[in-house]
Amino acid sequence: MESNSVSPMPEQNSQAPMAEFDKTPPTPPEDTLPMEDLPPPPTTVTVQEEKEKEAQAEIHRHYEDENEWSCGSWLEYTVVVVLASVLLLGSLGLTLFWVFQYRGGFAWRENPAKQFNLHPVLMVAGFITFSGFSVLLYRICRCCRRIYVKLLHTVFHALAIPCVAIGFLAVLDSHNLAQPPIPNFYSLHSWIGLVTMGLFAIQFVVGFFSFLILLCCEGATAGFRSALVPIHASFGLTTFMLAIAASVSGLTEKALFSLPDTYSQWIEEGIVINALGVSLIALGILVSFAVRSPTLKAGSKVDVSDRI
Amino acid sequence: MESNSVSPMPEQNSQAPMAEFDKTPPTPPEDTLPMEDLPPPPTTVTVQEEKEKEAQAEIHRHYEDENEWSCGSWLEYTVVVVLASVLLLGSLGLTLFWVFQYRGGFAWRENPAKQFNLHPVLMVAGFITFSGFSVLLYRICRCCRRIYVKLLHTVFHALAIPCVAIGFLAVLDSHNLAQPPIPNFYSLHSWIGLVTMGLFAIQFVVGFFSFLILLCCEGATAGFRSALVPIHASFGLTTFMLAIAASVSGLTEKALFSLPDTYSQWIEEGIVINALGVSLIALGILVSFAVRSPTLKAGSKVDVSDRI
Repeated sequence: MESNSVSPMPEQNSQAPMAEFDKTPPTPPEDTLPMEDLPPPPTTVTVQEEKEKEAQAEIHRHYEDENEWSCGSWLEYTVVVVLASVLLLGSLGLTLFWVFQYRGGFAWRENPAKQFNLHPVLMVAGFITFSGFSVLLYRICRCCRRIYVKLLHTVFHALAIPCVAIGFLAVLDSHNLAQPPIPNFYSLHSWIGLVTMGLFAIQFVVGFFSFLILLCCEGATAGFRSALVPIHASFGLTTFMLAIAASVSGLTEKALFSLPDTYSQWIEEGIVINALGVSLIALGILVSFAVRSPTLKAGSKVDVSDRI
Repeated sequence: MESNSVSPMPEQNSQAPMAEFDKTPPTPPEDTLPMEDLPPPPTTVTVQEEKEKEAQAEIHRHYEDENEWSCGSWLEYTVVVVLASVLLLGSLGLTLFWVFQYRGGFAWRENPAKQFNLHPVLMVAGFITFSGFSVLLYRICRCCRRIYVKLLHTVFHALAIPCVAIGFLAVLDSHNLAQPPIPNFYSLHSWIGLVTMGLFAIQFVVGFFSFLILLCCEGATAGFRSALVPIHASFGLTTFMLAIAASVSGLTEKALFSLPDTYSQWIEEGIVINALGVSLIALGILVSFAVRSPTLKAGSKVDVSDRI
């Protein structure tokens, strides 16, 4: 750090060893030491003994660190978990409400317009609700063993797969069965959606293979798996953000297609669509915060990367 | 960490002290030591001396760390900086191309449709190009003094203000002057845009006051400024992401309003709009990566927070 520059930024890396140093139990000044308690005088304590002492203090400190969790941290944890759960379930609930209240509910094949309604509901269920809970599991499950968290992470993402697949088929079918048929894959929404689905599939396959199948040769693959974690976490969060971008553009499309004259008149359905978009964006901010928060991460059993 | 759990995750915090320990110069085994070079025997090296030696090694190591930057890191730096610059300038260029090639260019007052064209150009210039470069400065300027980087960060954000303000007035005017007038603030795009502008204004005022004005009482405000950095960085990245969400929904709106029948026929303008949306999303991923990358951060003079 330059001497004449003013830094409000904590230089965490460079200060870490000093901070560790500062935390060692303070040694009383030499003249006040009860000499009879110390077989060799303090100036002749061997390096070996000192290192052993430090190592013991280190172990004790880490043990304390793992169990210590301040009131503020618990508050942050509770607020994030409750708010995220409300938004994740609320978004799905709002989508269902929108579709049933204003769009006539579901159908398959016999009514392309109603078949389309499966698209937003299943995509929000798969890409937002299931995937969001799957990501948040690493924050919510603080007391579980890591392998259980991993399995739950896989199960939630596996549940998202049929949702996304049927949601995709629903929109394809509804376009193709419409009279006249509606073209596919021309809009910005569809482009973002395709990229999101591709990234989701790659993430699932690579994650499943690397973090579950490769456990069969645990020791040999530890380095590889460890190196893959930040990449998997970064691409996971990117997929979630892309899903939100796809939702926002999709909701805008649907509002303009379905309410061409009334959207601008502040009708109820328009406000419901906007509220859904806003809650999805709020979710993006909250999940991103939860994944990266050092407070939430500090006490958890699993670290997720710092990179996006 | 639980003994029976399998962790592919690097426990950075807990391993940091060990890593520091490992990096100290290896001590040769006792029997091979050239005794004449060491006044006291190795087992009686005092704790004080050992600590001094370690502190010296520590200083040397940090000095080396600051200057050492591997080939891979330089490659990552170059790729990120070049790609981000191309995308930041390219997005603005593509917006200008779209507006002049397909939308008839600019006007003020006398032609509401052409006045609208100022909106996407100025919003992309302010929220994406200027703000993006402003954020990336903390990665691009590796050799500058921090105060210069801060001032440039402020200047770039200050340049964004008139862009955003005139861009906002342009769309308001074009709506109000249209025959019949077009209502304002009813769409999801406008809601996201308003939140983005509000957050941008708060960030600028708080940042200017805290990181520049408060430097007048440097020592007294260091703690406060230091605590504010992660919050400022998190909200800054959030503002950038919101701007991209607003752009994506805005581009979708404009495509459907201006190309109601031809957008689905893969016309040139539709593809240009989609390409602009895709490049903005790519920018969101890249800037987010650049801000969080430990490699890019490690050698830079300024740390930006790990939180969003």
